[in-house]
Formats: sequence, C-alpha cells, structure tokens
Amino acid sequence: MSDIKELITKNRSVRRFKEYESISIGKLKQLIDLARLSPSAANKQPLKYIISNGAERNVKIFKHLAWAGYLTDWKGPAEGERPAAYIIICRDKSIAKESINCDHGIAAQSILLGAVESGYNGCIIASIKRDDLRNDLGIPEEFDILLIIALGVAGEQVQIEPVDEEHGIKYWRDETSIHHVPKRSLDEVIYELK
Amino acid sequence: MSDIKELITKNRSVRRFKEYESISIGKLKQLIDLARLSPSAANKQPLKYIISNGAERNVKIFKHLAWAGYLTDWKGPAEGERPAAYIIICRDKSIAKESINCDHGIAAQSILLGAVESGYNGCIIASIKRDDLRNDLGIPEEFDILLIIALGVAGEQVQIEPVDEEHGIKYWRDETSIHHVPKRSLDEVIYELK
Repeated sequence: MSDIKELITKNRSVRRFKEYESISIGKLKQLIDLARLSPSAANKQPLKYIISNGAERNVKIFKHLAWAGYLTDWKGPAEGERPAAYIIICRDKSIAKESINCDHGIAAQSILLGAVESGYNGCIIASIKRDDLRNDLGIPEEFDILLIIALGVAGEQVQIEPVDEEHGIKYWRDETSIHHVPKRSLDEVIYELK
Repeated sequence: MSDIKELITKNRSVRRFKEYESISIGKLKQLIDLARLSPSAANKQPLKYIISNGAERNVKIFKHLAWAGYLTDWKGPAEGERPAAYIIICRDKSIAKESINCDHGIAAQSILLGAVESGYNGCIIASIKRDDLRNDLGIPEEFDILLIIALGVAGEQVQIEPVDEEHGIKYWRDETSIHHVPKRSLDEVIYELK
C-alpha cells in the first residue's frame, strides 16, 4: 500500500477523542500551512483559519456543533471524549465575494491528512449554529463560516464496510462501540461511458 | 519535511504536460479509489468519476476546457503538451439532489496527491463548457459536471512565491517559461481572534 493510500485509509472521521491529549498551536499552524499550499480556485486563496486548542474556546465552539446525524440516539461526545482542538475554516468575503468552488474541501483534506500523519484524527463538521458561534467568538462579519475541523487523538475505532441492504450508506455503531462506515465500491463510483 | 508536506508542496497545478507519457487505466482507478475512501458529507458519496486516457476521448474533453485565466496571451497547452488523462468528477443527482458541500474538493485533493506520489501532476479545471462536453461524451443528464482533473507527467516547472505588490495573487510565467505562483503567507491566512 502506498503512503498516501495508507494515510487516506487511516483518515476516518472520528467523533470521540482523548480530549486531554492536546494539540499544540505549532502543530495546528503546520496543518494550516498544508492547506495554504494546496490548490485554490483562480489562486485567490480566500480562506481564513481560526485556531482553538484551549478549554475555554473549545467549549464555546463545541456547543454550536451537531454530531453524527445517523446516530439518532447519540448526542455527541461526552466530556473527556470531545475534540482537543478545532480549526474553523472561513471564506473571507473581501477576497471572494460569491461562494467559492471547493477550496474548503481541498483545504480540509490537506489538514486531515497532515493530522493523521502526526497521529491525530479529525472530523469535518458543516452542521454549525453559525450565528451563535460568530457571536460567542467574535468572528468578523466579513468571514463566512464554512466548516469546522474537530481534531484530537482518536478515542474510537472506525471501520470501513461495503454498502449493504441493511445499512445503505448510513454509518452505525455496534455493541462493542466500533463505528462502521459503508463505502460504495469502486465499480459503483466509476461511470463507464456508453 | 514530512511526507505529506512534501507531497502537498510538489502538488503544483501543472498545465503543460508530456502528453505522450500515458497513464494507465489501472493507475487512474487507483487514484479514484483514494477519492472513494475520502470523507463525504453525511457519507452520501454522490460523486461519480469518468476516466479518459485515450487520444480520441482526450481530444473531445480538451476542446471544452479553458486554461489559466491570468495568462491572457496563452491559449492553453499545445499539441504534445496536453494532458495524458482526465478524471471528470460529477455529482449524481439521484443521490444528492441539491448542490453538495465540498466533497469534490476533498476528492480532487486525494486524487492529486495520489498522482504526485506516482510521479504525475495535475490541474483542477472548473472552467468547462459543460453542455458541449455532455453532448460530445454522452454524459447522462442526472450527472452534474463539477470538475475535471487534467493529469500527466509535468512538462513545466512551477515555483511558489510570496505575494508581492507587482503580481498580487496572479500567477505568471517568466522568460525561461517557469510558472510562478504567489501564495499568501501563513500569518495572512490565520486569523487571531480579538
């Protein structure tokens, strides 16, 4: 297996962490540097990044996030298993007035692969109470909040599964607390032109 | 430098290739496999991938692409320096009715990093005559064409530069044909909350 395939395979979305194994500001800046060096539509580079790795700011962020839509009887990670850090990805509207293409996806993947290489895991979260978060943190009006990447040392095991009739594409947690994620097959995602 | 930082740094958008150094279908499928294993919003996995690595299909794709907006006196790669292969990334509307978040950005970055690891480079292209491409290739109506990744062995040198007053964020080509790409500094892209 190639290095990149190993990294991508290890990069599972993790939602339960070892909350007290912290990530340094220096490491978080290294991850953002990976995003900075990644492709950007028309090279505009309109993304701005906000870092959080301290208890006070982490609490303010956490309460505005929604977790794991398919796990309907789980309210999100309990104290002690919450993310150790966050990177908030924003669009700077003074640079890109309209919505951007997919710069934030490119950036998020670079950050996550860097995190995995350094022994962390993460989860991209788009379900955010944006107005409340903006107010609580004082995020400027010219920033459109796009995504939050939750980061930390994984506190759960995540396993890839084939898509089957029972679960479809909905992930589930088994009785031993392992998180299972169905992925479509390569044959399904490649379209052969007629 | 970490492995991922090296890959990300080497992953420059390349627009001139060694056209006749082909990429096998097997390799292209490996790259799509990396995208398949990458995060997807709500795990829906609505992306479909169309492969091209043969002269006939490549020609049909090439003529519907626009290249390097800032190089106003360059009409795109000449014969012999065009991409050896393409991966067309589509949204399957039967899976995701509305626009998706940034799955295509995540997928594109996985594909490009895999390509770089294997000695290739690429360029994400969003400026596409979509209707004409759909007609020429027979892409089904239920697929929304999102991006095309052009791929091949690099036929040009690309260099990262700081953003300066002369160029701003616009890339340029110097008299020795080296392509220069200004990237904002880490300090500029990290926003420190007040």
